[in-house]
Amino acid sequence: MPGKIRTAQSVSFDIPASEQPGLHNRWHPDVPAIGTIRPGETVKIECVDWTGFQIGNNDSADDVRNVDLTKIHYLTGPFEIQGAEPGDLLVVNITDVQPFDHAPWGFTGIFDRQNGGGFLQEHYPKAAKAIWDFDGIYCTSRHIPGVRFAGLIHPGILGCAPSHEVLAEWNRREADLISSCAHSHPDQVVAQPPLEMNAHAGQATGDLAMKIAREGARTIPGRPEHGGNVDVNNISRGSTTYLPVHVAGAKFSVGDLHFSQGDGEISFCGAIEMAGIITIRFDLIKDGVKSRAIKSPVFRPGDVAPNFGPGRYLTFEGFSVDENGKQHFLDATVAYRQACLRAIEYLKQFADLFISGSNKGYSGEQIYLLLSCAPIKGSIAGIVDIPNVCTTLGIPMDIFDFDISVEAVPKKRDLGSCPISSV
Amino acid sequence: MPGKIRTAQSVSFDIPASEQPGLHNRWHPDVPAIGTIRPGETVKIECVDWTGFQIGNNDSADDVRNVDLTKIHYLTGPFEIQGAEPGDLLVVNITDVQPFDHAPWGFTGIFDRQNGGGFLQEHYPKAAKAIWDFDGIYCTSRHIPGVRFAGLIHPGILGCAPSHEVLAEWNRREADLISSCAHSHPDQVVAQPPLEMNAHAGQATGDLAMKIAREGARTIPGRPEHGGNVDVNNISRGSTTYLPVHVAGAKFSVGDLHFSQGDGEISFCGAIEMAGIITIRFDLIKDGVKSRAIKSPVFRPGDVAPNFGPGRYLTFEGFSVDENGKQHFLDATVAYRQACLRAIEYLKQFADLFISGSNKGYSGEQIYLLLSCAPIKGSIAGIVDIPNVCTTLGIPMDIFDFDISVEAVPKKRDLGSCPISSV
Amino acid sequence: MPGKIRTAQSVSFDIPASEQPGLHNRWHPDVPAIGTIRPGETVKIECVDWTGFQIGNNDSADDVRNVDLTKIHYLTGPFEIQGAEPGDLLVVNITDVQPFDHAPWGFTGIFDRQNGGGFLQEHYPKAAKAIWDFDGIYCTSRHIPGVRFAGLIHPGILGCAPSHEVLAEWNRREADLISSCAHSHPDQVVAQPPLEMNAHAGQATGDLAMKIAREGARTIPGRPEHGGNVDVNNISRGSTTYLPVHVAGAKFSVGDLHFSQGDGEISFCGAIEMAGIITIRFDLIKDGVKSRAIKSPVFRPGDVAPNFGPGRYLTFEGFSVDENGKQHFLDATVAYRQACLRAIEYLKQFADLFISGSNKGYSGEQIYLLLSCAPIKGSIAGIVDIPNVCTTLGIPMDIFDFDISVEAVPKKRDLGSCPISSV
Amino acid sequence: MPGKIRTAQSVSFDIPASEQPGLHNRWHPDVPAIGTIRPGETVKIECVDWTGFQIGNNDSADDVRNVDLTKIHYLTGPFEIQGAEPGDLLVVNITDVQPFDHAPWGFTGIFDRQNGGGFLQEHYPKAAKAIWDFDGIYCTSRHIPGVRFAGLIHPGILGCAPSHEVLAEWNRREADLISSCAHSHPDQVVAQPPLEMNAHAGQATGDLAMKIAREGARTIPGRPEHGGNVDVNNISRGSTTYLPVHVAGAKFSVGDLHFSQGDGEISFCGAIEMAGIITIRFDLIKDGVKSRAIKSPVFRPGDVAPNFGPGRYLTFEGFSVDENGKQHFLDATVAYRQACLRAIEYLKQFADLFISGSNKGYSGEQIYLLLSCAPIKGSIAGIVDIPNVCTTLGIPMDIFDFDISVEAVPKKRDLGSCPISSV
Repeated sequence: MPGKIRTAQSVSFDIPASEQPGLHNRWHPDVPAIGTIRPGETVKIECVDWTGFQIGNNDSADDVRNVDLTKIHYLTGPFEIQGAEPGDLLVVNITDVQPFDHAPWGFTGIFDRQNGGGFLQEHYPKAAKAIWDFDGIYCTSRHIPGVRFAGLIHPGILGCAPSHEVLAEWNRREADLISSCAHSHPDQVVAQPPLEMNAHAGQATGDLAMKIAREGARTIPGRPEHGGNVDVNNISRGSTTYLPVHVAGAKFSVGDLHFSQGDGEISFCGAIEMAGIITIRFDLIKDGVKSRAIKSPVFRPGDVAPNFGPGRYLTFEGFSVDENGKQHFLDATVAYRQACLRAIEYLKQFADLFISGSNKGYSGEQIYLLLSCAPIKGSIAGIVDIPNVCTTLGIPMDIFDFDISVEAVPKKRDLGSCPISSV
Repeated sequence: MPGKIRTAQSVSFDIPASEQPGLHNRWHPDVPAIGTIRPGETVKIECVDWTGFQIGNNDSADDVRNVDLTKIHYLTGPFEIQGAEPGDLLVVNITDVQPFDHAPWGFTGIFDRQNGGGFLQEHYPKAAKAIWDFDGIYCTSRHIPGVRFAGLIHPGILGCAPSHEVLAEWNRREADLISSCAHSHPDQVVAQPPLEMNAHAGQATGDLAMKIAREGARTIPGRPEHGGNVDVNNISRGSTTYLPVHVAGAKFSVGDLHFSQGDGEISFCGAIEMAGIITIRFDLIKDGVKSRAIKSPVFRPGDVAPNFGPGRYLTFEGFSVDENGKQHFLDATVAYRQACLRAIEYLKQFADLFISGSNKGYSGEQIYLLLSCAPIKGSIAGIVDIPNVCTTLGIPMDIFDFDISVEAVPKKRDLGSCPISSV
Repeated sequence: MPGKIRTAQSVSFDIPASEQPGLHNRWHPDVPAIGTIRPGETVKIECVDWTGFQIGNNDSADDVRNVDLTKIHYLTGPFEIQGAEPGDLLVVNITDVQPFDHAPWGFTGIFDRQNGGGFLQEHYPKAAKAIWDFDGIYCTSRHIPGVRFAGLIHPGILGCAPSHEVLAEWNRREADLISSCAHSHPDQVVAQPPLEMNAHAGQATGDLAMKIAREGARTIPGRPEHGGNVDVNNISRGSTTYLPVHVAGAKFSVGDLHFSQGDGEISFCGAIEMAGIITIRFDLIKDGVKSRAIKSPVFRPGDVAPNFGPGRYLTFEGFSVDENGKQHFLDATVAYRQACLRAIEYLKQFADLFISGSNKGYSGEQIYLLLSCAPIKGSIAGIVDIPNVCTTLGIPMDIFDFDISVEAVPKKRDLGSCPISSV
Repeated sequence: MPGKIRTAQSVSFDIPASEQPGLHNRWHPDVPAIGTIRPGETVKIECVDWTGFQIGNNDSADDVRNVDLTKIHYLTGPFEIQGAEPGDLLVVNITDVQPFDHAPWGFTGIFDRQNGGGFLQEHYPKAAKAIWDFDGIYCTSRHIPGVRFAGLIHPGILGCAPSHEVLAEWNRREADLISSCAHSHPDQVVAQPPLEMNAHAGQATGDLAMKIAREGARTIPGRPEHGGNVDVNNISRGSTTYLPVHVAGAKFSVGDLHFSQGDGEISFCGAIEMAGIITIRFDLIKDGVKSRAIKSPVFRPGDVAPNFGPGRYLTFEGFSVDENGKQHFLDATVAYRQACLRAIEYLKQFADLFISGSNKGYSGEQIYLLLSCAPIKGSIAGIVDIPNVCTTLGIPMDIFDFDISVEAVPKKRDLGSCPISSV
């Protein structure tokens, strides 16, 4: 008779993430498995927030400004899936994600341009922060009054360990990018090579730990062969993801839980980051990689999701002409940045003129944080009409307690402020 | 008492588009208005297909291969909107779009790499075509058996005329791109400068027509200042778009009707292209550009749309690592191309192994055409995790008459073929 | 090569419905077929409005008050479906419904209590009317300002002819009801027996026409064996209905087109009634009645529908306690009437206090008409908790151009009036 | 700084519900408040299952057959809401509902016709049971294999205490029904008058407890003045309900949590019944009853809900002709019963012929249980076409792991059995 769902791994709020043996922060085939899960089994897996508790529930952005980015992405795992072999598909059916009862809050950050940055770092170079309080499946922030929404709760990171071959390929191609940009963009970090400092190799010790630290792939980018940090917000409750298996036992890891995230996660620390518990039902499709021609993760979202109705999205267009008037060639990244900027400009002016009644509505940082974490939709409209890509960014109007439509009538509302670092 | 809705402009199927005075194919402030519409008024506007009847309802791709790309995008208009002044917002509420009763069909094309190309031109260099038959709001193709879906019918192009200043800026920045790429990519068309050949200046004649031909902006790209060829598929029935007005009278034009289009319109002639009738209710928001800080078009989709449920989308991830294994830096365009390729690979193998029962299911061209025009969703998942953007492409499984899920069981189905040009 | 869709039967606006040979207004197996349709074929079928043009586009309710209810429900058909035999399922895939281009309007009526009545006839005994103008897929009414919505357009009536046996059963059981109520409710019309006056037997003449007039079932009620006047609003575009076949050739008829209708169609003439054109793709499932155990029509709604989001419905509860305080036993009809009355009371008071700013907002008749035809949802919540059924009525708030939520702030809006008959 | 959400009242699994002082099972103004909640405050409230732990997680239906229906509906409360006065609206925003971590299961029962019965008791007179296991927000049952769905989790019962006047009115009108039926239906329980046996008056003692037992309204029916046992399944997470306040402090109670429930809750114990924790944010609208003309609860569903897409519902029609062929007059209750029976007949035959491959697919009881608790939609289509009401029952096809559409191809699946009581 089924009983309580087994917790495959728990975490501690009292021990530094870097010292917890159920965690690790490198992708490497040799990180030892911390437990075994059977196909068909459902388990709970606890996760720390992606910074390993570096950010506090307070009203200062100093912790965001000073975040140590070598000590992040402590993932829970890896778990051995019984019977998994290279070439299989690991079926990951997420049946729930929850914050801890004792810590019903999360944070969204804008990272300082010198320490992490983000999608709009040229415009918002200073660190800023918003704390979100969870009220069941809804959240609000004292730093961004006037909004409330249900989270499309999900893990930012999930994936199986790379094989040695896959890992070598990652290291090769990212090193190529670094070296090719070394002359053209000497000041820009374009990718992060393996780094021994603060590597957490899980339960590995000694030489093995050092090998993992020396070779292990960093966790910031998602990667096509296994997924990883994909930040797909609709890999949420009810979703089923098919992950390629590269090593015996699959060695599945998960972490970086998000209470909510907008498409793009634009401020980098842009989701509502939290510690929490994810419930997953695992299964295997033997030899599925080849038989289904699946080279990158494939998924089906869950059937339960916020449904605002299509007509409730105020949607902004962005094109491949940058904010300096320069024409780029079919650059979807530039185009999406413009859509983000357009949305911020609109909301800022709107809040100034129609809501707060003075010349101070929302700060740009408040809106930047909001667009990072609220359930906004970022879509590719047209990607073939040279030289412009057209992208769109849709804001669900119903997350605001005032009307943000173009036709809205003024209403008074105090829109507060978010902490912004002074230096 | 309201009666039949007025047709503000009709088109002919018997006269070449280049000779119809209600059409034009350049963006220029001096194209003469062909009629006047009052704010608050609803009118019907007839449109030719974007190629001006160059493509036939037949089983050869030769017309696609040989399409004359200097004779395209014949827009209906421009219309003067009474009282519109620069700085206003023109409110365009699309209340219906219909094909002509006597021509219930449309086409999707892959353009030859040497004549137009498309998003996957390196992979599918030859011209190909699919004809779609309309059955009410649904469509099917004899060239892509096994699929049927309702169109999210919309205009690919809508916008107000640029002012002289805006036009000059377009010409400057696109010329800059052309000249900056002249050395690095001498063989690539990166943008299209003004071209006198086959310019259609509407009702302008003589010197004015020649001026428009000489200066007028080409219609291929959407542009941030006015929209234009945005190819946003949910600017469909019920949508409301807010367009910046740049000249007195607004001079609104519309065309390039699509029975359906996937996000990205990836094969370039990728929508289900058709001639038809669009019904629009116009309105004005005086001085709205400044008061709402709107620099590019903003819109709200309609509340009527295909709703498959979020769980019915089989979704593919794509990253900024190209098909040659090269790592790009935060390149959303590369990432979306990978998602497209992954989806094609999956469907091709799926059709081969599970449906057709032989080694011939769908051709790559059939799927490329399908992903261009069916209601697929292209989203930006994460755009900040250096060096990889993660994009997703979701295919609504319910458009197929067989199950395309990863768990599907085999089923026999003849999947036909689409015409592909031999040279 | 597919061309224009065939019109299987057209109608005239100039000839009385009672004289058009493609129409009929009785259900009888012997009404002669007016044409033949092949399985797999799509055809257009034109229909008159359900009153056969008795109601005009004007501002008086006199035509509604004086409507001749013996001259209604002129259906188009019957059509012979090739190969259909008793026991088959006729597959009716509605791919479009459209008003006529030259008559883009419809009407909703409250019938006089003495001449038709309706669900709330004790409260609103007088005839009233609203005219609706169609603006593409949207509609507005000069008689009910402040609302606009997309129609979930559909036929009120569709079905196959009964067999002689089925017809005899209908006549038996409805006669039983009439006779059983003759003493208890002598003044109430509880069902309508066959009536020779104004029977339209289609192309039948002479004795056959008289037989049909004498025996033929009236069209007001839907009936379990074949469907008929089911008034199911989501048998709309894209829907597929499986209809039991009772006679050779099926003899399918359709009519009573609705531009929109709320669940329940409470004012009886409660949809937005219109003449128009329905496009249907027919198919057959041989012997499907038995193999699928289908005794009454089964359907799947289309995948295109207004989607307001679940959170946009202001929803009223109604229980089996009538407006006089009398407790009924598990009576869902009483319960739904209470939900309707609650909704009217709310909107009336709301409009009075928050919108019109005087003591005159909407009249009860305006709201009764609106709830009849707008896309409201009527649901059965609990039907087992003796003695109360709980039903709910949800109003989509987005059809109003003012906020009707409980939290709304006042806004000025002229809410006009609808014609109400004085006697 | 906000912290963990306060638990306003907990429950015990070890103490009989009848002895827990935080519970009560009568509606009466004098049940003492067990705690105070401030407007604007969010609290967690724990609830027992509606039978107070009478039903076990086992494979026998004996506990269902023998359930003691005088010991049910132990509600948690009443809570005093600070400042609430008669005439106010209590705003109940449910932000989460969860089962207990240690008891992730629930049950659905068919009650014996002699002990509770249900909507189809003439057809399924024997007690039966299905146990459901919760896997995150999804559930499955070993007694009904082949289905899995997300719960639209909600409380069956919520309401404020009646005033003495309201209570007197309830007792009057229900006594009237009982007496009026005493002769016509002597064997039928049509309503339940106050009953002293097993009354739980909460913290009341002595004379007060006896008074409450003597006068207190039973909890089975929902009632228009306050809601109560409404069994509205979309009063789920995110919903906001506006409850009339009848006594000082409102005295709000809640209970009868459902993991999921179909429209109608047809088998009476028809939801997936569970113990659990509900999180509610309370607020007050002063004098809202009068200013909004709200006599019965009004609510807005949450914006997060299962979304299968409208086209994924296989929908059955039911009319006011009962299973014996008797015609009833506009009886929506009879009509909905027919829709239920039609759906059962279809699924039973379908499972027999197409899935299990023998003559034993699902038993009628399995389907009856399933339709009671799965997210089926029960709607009122037409309620004015004398003498027939048309209702519809829509089954979301995606809850099955096989295709239940009319066009489905056979597939083998073991469909198990549910416990049915032998006597």
